[in-house]
Amino acid sequence: MSEIRIDPITGRHVIFAVERDLRPTDLWNLAKEVNPMSELDYVQKCPFCKGNESATPEEILKVPDSEDWKIRVFPNKFPAIKSMDDENMQSSKPHSIYEKYSGIGTHEVIVESPFHNTNYFTMNLEDFTIFIEAMVLRYKAIISNKDIEYVSFFKNHQKLAGASLFHPHSQLIGLNSVPDFVKYEVEGSKTFFDKTHSCPYCHILELELSKKERLVYENEHFAVICPFAPKYKYETWILPKKHLPYFETEDNIDELAKALYFCFKAMYIELGDFPFNMFLHALPKTMKSGEIYYHYHFEINPRLSGNAGFELGTGIYINSIYPEEAAKKLKEALEKEEK
Amino acid sequence: MSEIRIDPITGRHVIFAVERDLRPTDLWNLAKEVNPMSELDYVQKCPFCKGNESATPEEILKVPDSEDWKIRVFPNKFPAIKSMDDENMQSSKPHSIYEKYSGIGTHEVIVESPFHNTNYFTMNLEDFTIFIEAMVLRYKAIISNKDIEYVSFFKNHQKLAGASLFHPHSQLIGLNSVPDFVKYEVEGSKTFFDKTHSCPYCHILELELSKKERLVYENEHFAVICPFAPKYKYETWILPKKHLPYFETEDNIDELAKALYFCFKAMYIELGDFPFNMFLHALPKTMKSGEIYYHYHFEINPRLSGNAGFELGTGIYINSIYPEEAAKKLKEALEKEEK
Repeated sequence: MSEIRIDPITGRHVIFAVERDLRPTDLWNLAKEVNPMSELDYVQKCPFCKGNESATPEEILKVPDSEDWKIRVFPNKFPAIKSMDDENMQSSKPHSIYEKYSGIGTHEVIVESPFHNTNYFTMNLEDFTIFIEAMVLRYKAIISNKDIEYVSFFKNHQKLAGASLFHPHSQLIGLNSVPDFVKYEVEGSKTFFDKTHSCPYCHILELELSKKERLVYENEHFAVICPFAPKYKYETWILPKKHLPYFETEDNIDELAKALYFCFKAMYIELGDFPFNMFLHALPKTMKSGEIYYHYHFEINPRLSGNAGFELGTGIYINSIYPEEAAKKLKEALEKEEK
Repeated sequence: MSEIRIDPITGRHVIFAVERDLRPTDLWNLAKEVNPMSELDYVQKCPFCKGNESATPEEILKVPDSEDWKIRVFPNKFPAIKSMDDENMQSSKPHSIYEKYSGIGTHEVIVESPFHNTNYFTMNLEDFTIFIEAMVLRYKAIISNKDIEYVSFFKNHQKLAGASLFHPHSQLIGLNSVPDFVKYEVEGSKTFFDKTHSCPYCHILELELSKKERLVYENEHFAVICPFAPKYKYETWILPKKHLPYFETEDNIDELAKALYFCFKAMYIELGDFPFNMFLHALPKTMKSGEIYYHYHFEINPRLSGNAGFELGTGIYINSIYPEEAAKKLKEALEKEEK
């Protein structure tokens, strides 16, 4: 169990994970031992590289299930949130202004390649699809746990985006509560629905697919857009064209992988090997009434400029590129590549 | 005027400031030309250093008003938000899901020292107080403008905290709207007040000043605490003991400077020269009903670990040090210093 505290004014949740400071952050320097743009290679000291499997907890999933794996998934050695265990947390005193509760959850790592120095740009579509398939398998397994309310899938690429290890990997955290930012989106979607009788994401898709002003890529089932009010330069959203509130009901995984793959391709061509966070937002299990107005989606947030005091203090973002301009550049980057 | 867009789902505001990409970010490297812990020095190419005054816009305030200034304030050359000018922004089409409005505001830079390589730790209390006095003067001047609804005072220290220049400086942005994070706090305070008939900050102060578990420092008019649910490791809040919703009505400036100064001293002793953001939260002019339940305060957010995909995607923070432990260390650091 982990202690989760609630700020008495804003209601913001903070998970305490004291052991996370023991993470081997100096491993970041292993990045220097290998050139990301040179031939694919392994690094002897990297716990995620092929050959060093014994340095990580035992795997939950390996694809293919052989020594020549392409994807490995295992529990995070330094979890942000812990499974049920023997620790007993002192619960909040009654009538205290300071509330806390026991967080129970799971924290898994997806190693996206046996190689140390690959990334979404140097990977081919086939391998990228295998990664997405593995992620979907684990997502479905975690969300089906009765104690889990929400699964956060996310990726941190480069130190500026908070990555503590260089080797390509992403993470799945299963939580027994609804995260604020997802709640705000679901509530905002309800307000939108009450006014327009339409899911805001469906509405946005209709508009962006017809006007194409902020459209980067589309295939039969997915669209990639730059949103109207992006927090970050070159921010992109990947949405299913069909109205789907839950991610676990998605069955066009090949097309999803393709949409993500070409979105990253466009971004890498335009921005080089850039720092970014990617995350998934989907309807939490207990917010069933959101089924008519919430729509799952991925966000890619490039971290080309930092969140500084103004953003932290106000919640207002400053962007120096209009999304129409960003989308145009990303689209052109893909078109050039195709020729 | 600046274009401000509103996200149709969350209502989040984004300011577009295309010229900000022209900021001379390579100036950051000037940091290398001088050792922050060596003797105080000027750097020839730094626009904020003494002797290079002509490299910045003309000053609004200089203290003292002579060549031997200690503090200079001038308009930001690459403002996040623009004053009223001739540009005409296309306003949102009626019934569009995409709303935008004209942001009008001010953006000022406070150069906190004529020297390139000083910081809040190497500065003496007298010079720090002169800086706080100058900040208060400018805050009062900006907030008294009828078009300004809110003033955001903030500081970014080090690149990891989003600073684009090394030379010690902070900023004041005046806005014609209420920032989300301030609105959330004011609303959260109302909810707290409705339940307890007390301002949450006054309530917190009473508790922290009696139990002293998370108290770092206090003087007659101010207290420095580590909050119960801190977003960041070693996060501190500086609060007036008296219930004051507006910052401009504060008249114990010397005591405020002292509280901030000793808070930074404790943090520097414990953390070394660490990356941080500091910001001020005060009641917006048009939220008058908050006068009984909102309480101005400063936050110092150390940026020792990054905001990564989990935080960006969920709004949940992961902290690896309990505030009781952090407060204890900071308090002991100060006590050791005093001996």
